[in-house]
Amino acid sequence: MDSVKIGVCGLGTVGAGVVNLLQRNAGEIQRKTGRHLEVVQVGCRRDNADCDLAGIDVVRDIFAVVNNPAVDVVLELIGGTDTALALVQQALGNGKHVVTANKALIAQHGDALFALAASAGVSLKFEAGIAGGIPIVKAIREGLAGNTITRLAGIINGTSNFILTEMEAANRSFADVLVEAQALGYAEADPTFDVEGIDAAHKLTILSSIAFGVPLRFDAIYTEGISKITAEDMRFASEFGYRIKHLGITTKGKRGIELRVHPTLVEKSHLLAQVNGVMNAVLVDSDAAGQTLYYGAGAGAGPTASSVVADIIDIVRNQGSDGIPNLGFVPAAMQALPILGIHETQSCQYLRLSVLDRPGVLARISSILGQHNISIESLIQKDARKALAPIAIMTDEIPEQAIIAALAELEALDEVIGSVSRIRVESF
Amino acid sequence: MDSVKIGVCGLGTVGAGVVNLLQRNAGEIQRKTGRHLEVVQVGCRRDNADCDLAGIDVVRDIFAVVNNPAVDVVLELIGGTDTALALVQQALGNGKHVVTANKALIAQHGDALFALAASAGVSLKFEAGIAGGIPIVKAIREGLAGNTITRLAGIINGTSNFILTEMEAANRSFADVLVEAQALGYAEADPTFDVEGIDAAHKLTILSSIAFGVPLRFDAIYTEGISKITAEDMRFASEFGYRIKHLGITTKGKRGIELRVHPTLVEKSHLLAQVNGVMNAVLVDSDAAGQTLYYGAGAGAGPTASSVVADIIDIVRNQGSDGIPNLGFVPAAMQALPILGIHETQSCQYLRLSVLDRPGVLARISSILGQHNISIESLIQKDARKALAPIAIMTDEIPEQAIIAALAELEALDEVIGSVSRIRVESF
Repeated sequence: MDSVKIGVCGLGTVGAGVVNLLQRNAGEIQRKTGRHLEVVQVGCRRDNADCDLAGIDVVRDIFAVVNNPAVDVVLELIGGTDTALALVQQALGNGKHVVTANKALIAQHGDALFALAASAGVSLKFEAGIAGGIPIVKAIREGLAGNTITRLAGIINGTSNFILTEMEAANRSFADVLVEAQALGYAEADPTFDVEGIDAAHKLTILSSIAFGVPLRFDAIYTEGISKITAEDMRFASEFGYRIKHLGITTKGKRGIELRVHPTLVEKSHLLAQVNGVMNAVLVDSDAAGQTLYYGAGAGAGPTASSVVADIIDIVRNQGSDGIPNLGFVPAAMQALPILGIHETQSCQYLRLSVLDRPGVLARISSILGQHNISIESLIQKDARKALAPIAIMTDEIPEQAIIAALAELEALDEVIGSVSRIRVESF
Repeated sequence: MDSVKIGVCGLGTVGAGVVNLLQRNAGEIQRKTGRHLEVVQVGCRRDNADCDLAGIDVVRDIFAVVNNPAVDVVLELIGGTDTALALVQQALGNGKHVVTANKALIAQHGDALFALAASAGVSLKFEAGIAGGIPIVKAIREGLAGNTITRLAGIINGTSNFILTEMEAANRSFADVLVEAQALGYAEADPTFDVEGIDAAHKLTILSSIAFGVPLRFDAIYTEGISKITAEDMRFASEFGYRIKHLGITTKGKRGIELRVHPTLVEKSHLLAQVNGVMNAVLVDSDAAGQTLYYGAGAGAGPTASSVVADIIDIVRNQGSDGIPNLGFVPAAMQALPILGIHETQSCQYLRLSVLDRPGVLARISSILGQHNISIESLIQKDARKALAPIAIMTDEIPEQAIIAALAELEALDEVIGSVSRIRVESF
């Protein structure tokens, strides 16, 4: 039987990882597919010493790959959303199956690209874009297909999770750990994309669509990063029995879809709180299977290549027509449900205030909270005899509007110094 | 488009769960498949008040279901391996796709049944047989298909995990917790199948085949249950930094396949050690994705139905020909590698001895271990002044033969009372 001919666009960490994996496991993959998967062409700006390109046609023009009649499957591993968009459009238009690891591309242009793939009768797969080596797209779209999913919550950015883990373990500041993460190669020189939650937002956008069958709405997602979390917040959270994790959370309720990325207090005893370092995990609440969780490395050459190659194997086994809709729901059944703004949600809240040691300060704080119908579930006051002392509060579940109004009044008190830290709490 | 016509054989907990799920999520499933999945016939000894059979043809002869020309997909949910085997054979022979939740049937007769399904050109799916609602078969067979898998370790029997969790949490005996598990419906009146590891062995047999592409060898698996574990072992394990979990472990090495089910010490900090109660989890070590873990409910009507319905949806979407080999490898590529006997393996070991308080007893124990080239990694001696005191030892990695010989000599010492407890240790 003829080999399956693969064209690789982009030869950075992921591209080289895929070439290596296809070569190393060629025998094992042939045992699983009955076919030989052969990289016939690589388009890249420069060669990569991490992989052996002997016998592969290497070109500097990535568009030559998508226009190569000999190529069956195109791998888009260049990243970004401009050239990548044009490249994928042209590949699909040329009748090539496409596998991408590009979450930004799918989150922002997925709906149009899936329509293009459908009209061209080819596959467009993207498992590698979300949570690295964890087959989470497959788990939701196929493994849990019999369920009505109610909530999905994930640690889907390894950089943020590494920083939070180190901050808690060693009582260090965000800025301090960030420098270490950059030195280790876990964070970019400009870390905004990871630590401000944008990367997680791309991934959650896609996960929400395949969980609930709603169009991709990256424009409507609420995003908050970890740069304001302090080691003091970590300690108070721990005293309350929680850990701080950066989560992407999406739910489907009667009013619509919640779609939010933010630091979150998670009970220490829950498995999600045990996911440390650069590891990722996605929790799915569904009506029949109940709670399932998927854990693994969220980035890196090997894990990302694992998912890219799994997508290629799916295409090869199914000969490109597996009958599985790209977002798990048939296009005609997609529902443009309202995406709730963050102000329309409600959560329990963790608050931390720095207060001056004056008589009656606690009474004034409680009174403001009470006026907004916010109950205090627990409260820790430390070093109360110091001139400036921290107070940490856990509230019951309250509307976002109420806490915003209360925070403004709390911050206006003479005894409250600086802004109030506020982190949402999620129960699992 | 015509509906997909489903015939259900068996209407116990799982059968009723599947009927309920197909009815409850009919709309959501139609959004995902474009088809209506309709239960047209149920074969069962008696009706089940837990589900609504209105409009469904209910028959007392399950073979009528597999012979019904109107049925497209047969669900084998009767359990056992005699009638179930005949039923599935006849269904496949009649050209019906079959979905089963029967791990014993697949572990013991899978190879022949898959060959029959292939020759009939139909699907035989079994996700629900292993780890309930966790889509672990799909994860390994498809999601990790680009990897060479090196080891798989799972908590795959909820009853045993519930008992061990309670024993540790409340310092209770095996016998005591077993009674509670029976009262809660987590253990059968005759619990042998679960607590002696047979159920886990069925599941591991299947997982090993799809991980490594080896024929199903239930006859060759090593199986040890949890009935000899004591609360004292739990406490010592904890002092060494471990928890005792009942694991199925399969590895592929140069000499062959290890295939073993037994209580195992797992480091407390590892995610597998955090899987409590009736929950299941499967850890996979693979060359590209690294360590991934899949967690969820291992049994019960909902989780099992989730996997049964996912299999039906796969069949419907792919119109029965998804190109995915039943065991993940094309039949011609299956390799009958040697299955290593337990005596050919090696592990670190936990030992617990009851010793009389006599001078030099520790020296004699160490001497025997030393003669067998067994190094002591750590040792805890408690209440040494009592007449009869326990000693717990953690060894380095040693061949099974060495520990068996050493145990015989240790038990022959006058100062060692009763038999020596011995539990294998696994590092992740």
